Amino acid sequence: MADLHPQLVEDCLVLGSFPLCRLLLMKDANYPWFILVPDREDIREIFQLSDEDQIQLIKESSFLSAVIENEFRADKINVAALGNVVPQLHIHHVVRYEDDIAWPSPIWGKHPAREYSEELLDTIANKILNAIKLESSKQSIRFIDSPVDS
Amino acid sequence: MADLHPQLVEDCLVLGSFPLCRLLLMKDANYPWFILVPDREDIREIFQLSDEDQIQLIKESSFLSAVIENEFRADKINVAALGNVVPQLHIHHVVRYEDDIAWPSPIWGKHPAREYSEELLDTIANKILNAIKLESSKQSIRFIDSPVDS
Repeated sequence: MADLHPQLVEDCLVLGSFPLCRLLLMKDANYPWFILVPDREDIREIFQLSDEDQIQLIKESSFLSAVIENEFRADKINVAALGNVVPQLHIHHVVRYEDDIAWPSPIWGKHPAREYSEELLDTIANKILNAIKLESSKQSIRFIDSPVDS
Repeated sequence: MADLHPQLVEDCLVLGSFPLCRLLLMKDANYPWFILVPDREDIREIFQLSDEDQIQLIKESSFLSAVIENEFRADKINVAALGNVVPQLHIHHVVRYEDDIAWPSPIWGKHPAREYSEELLDTIANKILNAIKLESSKQSIRFIDSPVDS
């Protein structure tokens, strides 16, 4: 398994793995914020993935987006592959609300991360893991919730 | 063909169409900035596209990303589906340089758009259209450079 970039390890909680990507929860209580990290070495751009991995990526990304949109009653999901600071390819999936503190701006660089209480972090992690387990059993997508880097 | 949102019409130049998406050039001379707009009605999120359209989207997105990375000698490509303001699904593809005015921040909300001279806008449009034509003829991707909304 490819190592996670140290910045991702520091900022995130590892929730588990889809066939291609690890699923992370960003430790910023301002927004329900999830990150997919394809388990491939030395890839910085989506187009550098194989065609097969690209198809798997959009499948996992859309699965995740639909689950979090429903689970968090999102007004919008923001999906972005930026990576100007952390070169390892990672794709943000951010639940947005019309009354969140950055709306309608993109979230990056808007507000400093707000710390989760341990209880709230657990609540969010379990909420999303339960929703993913329920949905993945209905669809042809595999998910293993065994944190490997935390 | 689905109507383009008026804000996209105002801010962008239509360069042509892939099988799924229209290709737009954002009129902001701060960055070479391209947008793909899937030609589908009433779609706000990537996961709302059919599975087939999602696969086509990532194919067109990666094709475009590779072309602009090469053509503009980018340091990084930023790919993002935000849509907090303009609800019609559109995917940003922004060429980033380590010395651009917003680096390493994401570009949104950082700096007001800088107007292109007509000459530079033509130059950029032709540069990308020529590169796309060359590459698309080598790969199994269709592109028609007949602006339909400008």
